[in-house]
Amino acid sequence: MVTRADAVRLDGADPLAPYRGEFVIPDPSLVYLDGNSLGRMPRRAAARLAAIGEAWAGSLIAGWDEWLSMPSRVGDTLAPLIGARSGEVVVHDSTSVNLYQLVHAAAARRPERRVLVIADDEFPSDRYVATGVAAALGLQVRPFTDGVRLDDVAVVVRSLVDYRTAAVADLTALTAEARDAGAIVIWDLCHAAGAIEIDVHSAGVEMAVGCTYKFLNGGPGSPGFAFVAQPLHAELQQPIHGWFSHRDQFEMHLPYAPHADARRLLIGTPPVLALAGAEAGIALTAHAGMAAIAAKTAALTGFGLAMAAELGLPSPTPRDPARRGGHVAIVHPEARTLVPRLAAEAHVIADFRSPDIVRLGCSALTTRFTDVYDGIDALMNLIAA
Amino acid sequence: MVTRADAVRLDGADPLAPYRGEFVIPDPSLVYLDGNSLGRMPRRAAARLAAIGEAWAGSLIAGWDEWLSMPSRVGDTLAPLIGARSGEVVVHDSTSVNLYQLVHAAAARRPERRVLVIADDEFPSDRYVATGVAAALGLQVRPFTDGVRLDDVAVVVRSLVDYRTAAVADLTALTAEARDAGAIVIWDLCHAAGAIEIDVHSAGVEMAVGCTYKFLNGGPGSPGFAFVAQPLHAELQQPIHGWFSHRDQFEMHLPYAPHADARRLLIGTPPVLALAGAEAGIALTAHAGMAAIAAKTAALTGFGLAMAAELGLPSPTPRDPARRGGHVAIVHPEARTLVPRLAAEAHVIADFRSPDIVRLGCSALTTRFTDVYDGIDALMNLIAA
Repeated sequence: MVTRADAVRLDGADPLAPYRGEFVIPDPSLVYLDGNSLGRMPRRAAARLAAIGEAWAGSLIAGWDEWLSMPSRVGDTLAPLIGARSGEVVVHDSTSVNLYQLVHAAAARRPERRVLVIADDEFPSDRYVATGVAAALGLQVRPFTDGVRLDDVAVVVRSLVDYRTAAVADLTALTAEARDAGAIVIWDLCHAAGAIEIDVHSAGVEMAVGCTYKFLNGGPGSPGFAFVAQPLHAELQQPIHGWFSHRDQFEMHLPYAPHADARRLLIGTPPVLALAGAEAGIALTAHAGMAAIAAKTAALTGFGLAMAAELGLPSPTPRDPARRGGHVAIVHPEARTLVPRLAAEAHVIADFRSPDIVRLGCSALTTRFTDVYDGIDALMNLIAA
Repeated sequence: MVTRADAVRLDGADPLAPYRGEFVIPDPSLVYLDGNSLGRMPRRAAARLAAIGEAWAGSLIAGWDEWLSMPSRVGDTLAPLIGARSGEVVVHDSTSVNLYQLVHAAAARRPERRVLVIADDEFPSDRYVATGVAAALGLQVRPFTDGVRLDDVAVVVRSLVDYRTAAVADLTALTAEARDAGAIVIWDLCHAAGAIEIDVHSAGVEMAVGCTYKFLNGGPGSPGFAFVAQPLHAELQQPIHGWFSHRDQFEMHLPYAPHADARRLLIGTPPVLALAGAEAGIALTAHAGMAAIAAKTAALTGFGLAMAAELGLPSPTPRDPARRGGHVAIVHPEARTLVPRLAAEAHVIADFRSPDIVRLGCSALTTRFTDVYDGIDALMNLIAA
């Protein structure tokens, strides 16, 4: 039987435990299991924001000497966390805008193909974006299923980690299958980046987008990111042409002539304050290292799953640690009311996903095994009462 | 002859002078004439950023109870500054993204028309965006000129204030001319908002975009804004469909069903930290009032133009205060080297616009008449030396 003493022992042996001290945690008694929606605030984010404020007030326009390169500089810091190389990742705008650009870019590579594939139960915002582009381009939308026919498909949009169950899709197999069929997969790494190990190059991934405010602890609304493999850069066509992607930005030459690397995805003036938060979270993740983080993610979620199983709480989250992301889903018909009751009655923050999922996020740099224990224990108490 | 004593006297009589105390100004001796590129930092921005940081660390995901409405709440604060109404303005994403959405939206209203009009010398980033959309939609691009034919035109993109000369276009006349011809003008208010009085409704404006980091002092890369007149909301079609425009955002229903007001322009998760800066600058502008701000803008630029004329410095900036925005342009063949020399040798920050313009920004809440005097005096000394 899993006990709280087990959790205490695991926390004591956790090599990443000291990283919790790198975050601002005003209430250590709060059981926060929602770092997969909004990660905690790194101390260095506070310092970075203060520094940007000082530069805004003091350096004024000269601050841009440093800020201009932020989308690519932060992208270069993020790149190794997903197995990408320098110049292949930019952090800018929202994930939705990044996805919009890449769906267009992928479709532009196969103008003769008229099909976009996305699962009916894909993250709704991805569906809104992708089906919107499909309608504009006159593409048919085909539901993703295992073994879906891809030989007439231009683009597939697919989350690596399912936002409800935490199931991990087969990055290498689907990428290869699509490539063999002449299609391209845009991987959504939102619930994967900063939680599990990803090697886009060994998997042959050509395009991906992701989020920095979940497991990368970038702050509320910190910008999304886009990855495009280097061989695709020269031919990359994206539809939103702004001056930050233009080669001679301040000479302002016409016509539009974009950069030769991932910077051709940049659009307008980037939100420096929001990027500073992203930079802090990403740098801290890079410092801890994805191998250690992924190992702890698997340990935390494994501990939670074992406890849930003992208590008879059903979960669709995969048992195989290689096939699951950074949260544990518990299915319960009262999930919609259990989540606010956990907050009000037990000081436990989880989140609800319609219609019946309680989602318990396990964020390796801040979540303790005791948090997982206490959260599931509180959930069980509410259910059993 | 304009003297420094005149400038000192004008500063003494300036009713907005106390607002300078609302900004963080570490070096009062710096002559900052670039608030039209990056406005100064309001003290309340520092306080707002600290508060957002505290909410991020302490309230965590519950912070979104307040943050979710920021794009429309900040938009509602901005609305009266341009004569718009509540629900007609949203502050989100970059100006380029806002313009991209509205060019698509305007073109969608006139699917049978195949022409987009934009001046050859329009702000280059607007040209990149607009010609990119035109290429994607198969629209012909026709140069804007006075009296350009509009009867077969879908959309016109036009800056209200020219970024080089500060000349103000005729908002009412061009809007009416376009409407009579069945076209729509998207006004770019980047160099106008927060500098001069604008009344979109009395001018019959249907769509506009703008920037919050210039005269609105929103901070580096603070989000852009979009205005769409209420009667157009119900039919408004924009191409980037994200979850923040969806009516039941967290129920995540399919298919995509956007809000019935300007929120249908929202896309993904907004950059809260960047929005907090915008909120601070916009609130301070609203507090001072656009009538007082516009009067001081005209007085500052008038003072600068009079001094430049006496010194024989040529300027393309209009003499009529009703026809100019918030900066004074000085033309000089050595402009490219004069601007960095002003910074290095005279502690004066201006900016350069290719090929031969020294741009002196006059930001009503922070620029002193003595700044204008000292800046032009230093420029003249460099030129005469």
